Parts: sequence; C-alpha cells; structure tokens
Amino acid sequence: MTSRILIVDDVPTNRIILKVKLTAACYEATMAASGPEALALARRSPPDLILLDYAMPDMDGIAVCAALRADPATCRIPVIMFTNTADEAARISALRAGADDFLIKPIDDKVLMARIRNLMRARDTTGFSATTDAIEGLGFAEPVGGFDEPGHIALLAARPETALRWRKVLAPHLNDRLSVITRAAALEGAVPAPDLYILGAELDPGISGMQMMSDLRSRPDSCHAAICLVLPNDAHAEAATALDLGADDVLRDDFDGAEVAVRAQALIARKREADRRRARLAESLRLSMTDPLTGLHNRRYALPVLGRMLAGAVQARTSCAVMVLDLDRFKLVNDRHGHAAGDTVLVEVARRLSAGLRPGDLIARLGGEEFLIAMPGISDHEAFEAAERLRRAVSARQILLPSGGALSMTVSIGLALSATGYETPDRLIARADGALLAAKAEGRNQVTMGGRTAA
Amino acid sequence: MTSRILIVDDVPTNRIILKVKLTAACYEATMAASGPEALALARRSPPDLILLDYAMPDMDGIAVCAALRADPATCRIPVIMFTNTADEAARISALRAGADDFLIKPIDDKVLMARIRNLMRARDTTGFSATTDAIEGLGFAEPVGGFDEPGHIALLAARPETALRWRKVLAPHLNDRLSVITRAAALEGAVPAPDLYILGAELDPGISGMQMMSDLRSRPDSCHAAICLVLPNDAHAEAATALDLGADDVLRDDFDGAEVAVRAQALIARKREADRRRARLAESLRLSMTDPLTGLHNRRYALPVLGRMLAGAVQARTSCAVMVLDLDRFKLVNDRHGHAAGDTVLVEVARRLSAGLRPGDLIARLGGEEFLIAMPGISDHEAFEAAERLRRAVSARQILLPSGGALSMTVSIGLALSATGYETPDRLIARADGALLAAKAEGRNQVTMGGRTAA
Repeated sequence: MTSRILIVDDVPTNRIILKVKLTAACYEATMAASGPEALALARRSPPDLILLDYAMPDMDGIAVCAALRADPATCRIPVIMFTNTADEAARISALRAGADDFLIKPIDDKVLMARIRNLMRARDTTGFSATTDAIEGLGFAEPVGGFDEPGHIALLAARPETALRWRKVLAPHLNDRLSVITRAAALEGAVPAPDLYILGAELDPGISGMQMMSDLRSRPDSCHAAICLVLPNDAHAEAATALDLGADDVLRDDFDGAEVAVRAQALIARKREADRRRARLAESLRLSMTDPLTGLHNRRYALPVLGRMLAGAVQARTSCAVMVLDLDRFKLVNDRHGHAAGDTVLVEVARRLSAGLRPGDLIARLGGEEFLIAMPGISDHEAFEAAERLRRAVSARQILLPSGGALSMTVSIGLALSATGYETPDRLIARADGALLAAKAEGRNQVTMGGRTAA
Repeated sequence: MTSRILIVDDVPTNRIILKVKLTAACYEATMAASGPEALALARRSPPDLILLDYAMPDMDGIAVCAALRADPATCRIPVIMFTNTADEAARISALRAGADDFLIKPIDDKVLMARIRNLMRARDTTGFSATTDAIEGLGFAEPVGGFDEPGHIALLAARPETALRWRKVLAPHLNDRLSVITRAAALEGAVPAPDLYILGAELDPGISGMQMMSDLRSRPDSCHAAICLVLPNDAHAEAATALDLGADDVLRDDFDGAEVAVRAQALIARKREADRRRARLAESLRLSMTDPLTGLHNRRYALPVLGRMLAGAVQARTSCAVMVLDLDRFKLVNDRHGHAAGDTVLVEVARRLSAGLRPGDLIARLGGEEFLIAMPGISDHEAFEAAERLRRAVSARQILLPSGGALSMTVSIGLALSATGYETPDRLIARADGALLAAKAEGRNQVTMGGRTAA
C-alpha cells in the first residue's frame, strides 16, 4: 500500500509541481483546489499526510487546519502548511491552528521529503496504530485536560551563553521551566527527564547535536522526550538528516521566541499524549494478564512465567514446585449463598494463599475455584510443608460473608516437583492435576504429591 | 539511571582504555577479567550491553557468548565482540554464537559508540520492555520454532549488476529468497514486505541508501523490516550515522558471503521475534477489550468508542441511539439450570443481538446479563423500531441448553438518543439506564425510550 498525501492549493501549477515531486518519491498524491474540497476528501478517505497552502481565496489554510483538528476522523493527520511570504504572525497562527510545520517557499526538497518521512513515522508513536486502530480510542472519553502542568525544557549548547540566550528569548512566551544543562547531566539522566530537549548543532568538541540526540534516544530515561535541534540557517542537508534521525523539529539559530514557544508547546503536548497512550496500552496489557475478581495473575500470564521459572530451575540445578489448588465443594457456596458470597470466598482465599508465599513465588487463578502456585528453588520436603501450611491457612478461620454469615472452606492441593530436565508448564501442571484428583478422591482438604516425573 | 556496560577482557590496559571511553560517553562501565567472572556478574545484575574480548585464556569469547545466550536471565543482553586479528572463521563463529557484532581493532570510536546506541535502542523493539517486563515472558512457553520458513531478502543497489553480484555471493550460504528489486518497487510496497533489505550506499542519482532507509522506515509496509547498508570500506562517519539512523547492520562493499549470510539470518530471526512479540502484545490488547464468554467487546472498550461516535454525531449533525439491554429474570436461569445453561443463554442472546445490527453499530457486554448497543445516524423513530426488532429477536425462539432442554428468554431495553450538543457516554448511558428501569417496572420484555435530553 503506497502512502497517500493530499495536496491542497488553489493554484493548479503548484499542485502539479508538488504532485510530480511526490510521485517521484513513490507517494500517491491526491489533490484538492480548495479548503472545503480538501475537508470533504479528508473525511471521506483520510490521507496519511496533508500539504496545505496557507493563502487560498475562499477558506484559508488556518481555517482548513482548524477544521481538520476539530474532527475526530481527521484530527491526527499530519499537516504541513506552506506559503510564499515569511510573515511571522501567520506562522504562529498556523502552528496554533495545529499545523505540524510551516514551510516558506522556496522549499528545499530534501527537507520537505525528510519532514514528510519524519511526520509519518511519528504518527505511530506506540508501534500499534496499524494493528489496533480501535485502541487509539481508549481514553478518548477521558477529559482532555485543557490545563496541563507546565512542562520542562532542557537547553543544551556548546557554550552556556548560547543556551542562556535561548532561555532569554523563550522565557517571555512560556510558562514551562527552562533549564540550561550540561551534556553529562543530560546523559546521566535527570528523573523525571525533561519533556523537551533543545540541542545546539555542536556540543562538546567532536560531539554533534545529532549524536547527542541519538544518545538520548538510546537511553531509557530520555528516549521518549521530544528533541529539537538548532541548526545554522541554511543547513538544509543537516536539517534533512536530523529529521530522519528522529528530531521532532529543527530550528534556525536566529529563531523567533514567540514562534518557537508555540512549536515547543505543541511538541510537549504531543509527547504527553504519547506518554498517556503508552500508559493506557500498558494498563490494557496489565489487565489482559490479571484476574479482575481476585487481582491475581490469570492463566494466560502464569503459564509463560512458569515456563521461565522451570528453565531457570534447570539452569540453577534446583527444583520448582507446582501446586494446583481447588476449593472443596465451592459450587455449594454459589448455589446456597449466591454469587456475592462465592466471590467473597474466592477473594479471601486468594488473600490467604498470597500471604503464605515468599517473594518470587507465583500465584495465579486458573479459572473458577482453581489456583496455581509455583515455588522455585525448593526441595520435595519443603514443598510439601509449604502446601500443608497453605491448606491450613485456608481452613484455619471461617470466611465472613457480606450477608453477615460465615463459612468454613477447605482446599485440596495437588503438588508436583519439576524434573531435572526441562519440562513444559503444561506437563508439570498436568502432573499436579493428577495429584489433585487423588487428593479429592481421598476425601478432600489434603495435599497429595505426584510422582517425581511422569515420563 | 545511567546505562551500564560490562567490559570483559583479560588484559587490564584494554579494560581501562575502554572504561575511560565509556565513562566519557556517560555510561557506567563495570569490568570483568575472565569469562566466568563475566557470567557471574551478568547473571547477578544484568548490564545493558556487554563488550567482550574474543581471545581470553580460560574461557574464550565464543564460549562466554554461548553461555549468555543459553540463560534466560542474560539471553537478551546485546553483545559486541572484538578482536585483534581479522580471522574470518572466528567472525562467523562469534556471530553464530549470538554476538550482535564483531569488531576488529583498531575500532573506530564513533562507530563503536553508534553501535552501542543502536543496540540499546533495538532492545526495546516494542516500546514496552521498560514498563511491562513481565509481558516479555508471554509466549515464552511457545515452541521456539527451530525451523523457521525461509526468509525473503531484497537487494537494492544503484546498478543492478551490483545487486546481482551480492546475490551471487550470498546465495550459496542461504536458503532464503534473494530478490533484486528497484527503489520504486520497494517503496510502492510488496505484500508481504521482505524480512531484510540490503541497500547500497547510493541508489538513484541524489538518493542515498540512508535516505531510502528512512523512507522504508516511514512506510507501514516496510517499517518493521531489517535493513543493512553496504558502505565503502573506510566510511566510518557514514557507518556511525547509518547506525544512528536505525540501520540494523552496516556491511563493507567487499563483504564476505558466508559472514553476511550469518548476519542476515540473525537479523531475520530478530525481526521475526519482534514481529511475534508485537503480535502477542496486540493479542493481549485485543483480549483486554473483549468479553471472553460472548466474544463481544467489553465495557472498557465500548465507552471510548461510544465517545467517538457521539462526537462524530455532533459533527455530522445526526443522532446516535444508545440502548441498554438487560435479560429478564436471568438469575433464575443460573439458579435453576446451572452456570453452563446461563452461559449458553448469554452467548446465544449476544449472537441474536449482533445479527440484528448494521455494520458500524456498536455492541458490548457491560457485565452480567447487561448489554450496550449504539447505533449512529438514526432518528428517534428508526431507533425505536430497531430496539423492537432486537427485543423480538431475543424472544422469538427458545434457546437450546447443553443439557437438552430449552428456555424462553426476554429482554428489557432502555433507549436514549444523543442530544444536539456533545454529551459524555456516561451521561447518555445513564439516560438509557433510566429508561431501562421504567421498562422493567412496567412488566419487562419491552422497549422504553428516555427523554430527548436529561438536562
């Protein structure tokens, strides 16, 4: 699938010239001659990026950009606006309206193409947009947080005077904290890391801003921060490389404070949105591995973790104990006392079992009233003792029900110890399951140990 | 937190020189004088990367590397091996043992540092390792698939003769498909994309391999492929930039086929592992949004999607209908016929409701016996008709139980239509809930419509 770019310009020649360039770069270019036509096209079939003329007769670029940003269907499409005249107020309005960049003609083709690649890459900040579009919507219903905390911008140049000058130029236009830092301080990792780094073209002797950017991107504390490079005014090739290296923006070294303040705020907002999206994804992942009732891990999480434990035990030449625990006569609780009582029992049993484990042991709810426990680095004898303790912990005291009553519960435990060679989690669990059946058959409320190996 | 690098070398001077360089680059360097010492250190406290001498007296680099790769605790740590002599067989054994790179002294510092940054960045292929270490384990229990399908390597150089020469050199050492392609074909996107691109330093006039790499990385079809750049032999600065730009490897233009075959296979294996990891994460995300019993979306997914629908309805000046549906007297099913019967009823009702919807409508299980349906772009009258049809679909035929019996079920539906201004999903659902209470109070098995707005 070729990436598709929408060109919006009222002058036919301009559209054609851009289309030729984009086609040569293997993009599919579609064209619109006016703002309303562009909006209709973008809503019907959202392009991957929009190149938007600033000055058009019936609806100017700012109005088009604002309309794109207001519509959920088009609000995430990257927009590059361009114009013939370098009017500072226009630039600022365009960026405020949500343009990702604002370029002044004549536009350097290398920079334009690098900017296009850069924005297309930046769309997929989590690496999942393509596969799981739906997830993008998660959290949409959250309040957008119109009033974010002030951000933190770190300024880093070869000479402190330069960084101090940047701070002086930017400070009147920003509420964010502006701090002048050294390269070592940046790399040793401030916690929390700044939201945005603004880096000079050359830092220490032999260390360029681009190298520093790659360095920040390779370190866990700073890898998600936004980064701007300040480059000499006509350094087109360097600007293109910087954008390809992942710079979020490139600035001229005589930059205008008001304009860069708007760019900085957009970058900080984008960075925070990406942080929130990553946090939501991580939370989704956590939920996919958790049993919502007891808060224990679920089967899906437990099996691979057990797999690693078993591999580790083989490496360390120790045993790993696996127990499958099943609450005795649990069905009667649900039938006689209702689901709320059943849930209370499961939660309390989960709590009692967890309290009896060592750090590093694994506990999971396999489903229904069945639990899994794994204890690495343990002997037969210790494992049996541990299982006995867990059994007694469940039956020791009655469980109070929300209705005011109380129930005595017991648990049957099947125990198996890992063999000296690697055994899959499924096979070891099957051995523990076999032992559990024996425990049930022999009258419940007891621990039964399976044979040392099934094979 | 400073990134930590372990230096393993039996010659003290070599260790010190490397430590000075790494410290200057703001890494924390730890040192080991032998393989066993290195293994013990790495297991106790895994570093972010290991620099490993090839020739050591008691345990050589190859053995150390193999031991690192065999242990789950250390198998993912990037390893750069280095040596004094350019022995081709040694290089190949080192790569086969799992070294990520093999550098020959004198090592260019810029290239070494770029390689370190590159490998540290590459560790986090999904962007989640830091936050959700546990998830890395998902799928560990899966068979590792020792016999992967042959891969596909695309070769692209300025002149087809060059690419054909590469193919001739590589073919005897690989089972993978080797195809010579053009730039346009690569960018227009083959489906499926190759696993690995090998790109020349210069492609079409004015288009460098590095630009092409950035271009491939910015397009969805090719962004996850591995990419190698073939650079002139002493192009150290270019090699460093290529690694910072995200090249997975850089090759000399007189490369040795046997060695590059090993490198290519390692890259293809790494790329496929990253693909699998992404797929597992995407599956985890899908599961976190799905009700496991009915396969419908869950509440957590539905609310933000409904939020987007409602915002879209405001934009399009249409209404969105929201229904909350509750199975009548469902508790009796569980109590009288057991849980299996209850589950069968829920699954069948979910199926009947889904069958009555248009593409683009939303259906979710809110929990228990309660469902949510949203239908965008619909009038009051149409929505009421739709709800009536859904109500009749549930009660039209008895539901067959696994036990052989059959049950008649009915559903009560509360309906609300979105207001002209934006209303949150929660508020609209609350209005539908109010209507549902009325439907229940008036005798169940009916549709009740809430007031047009609550405010």
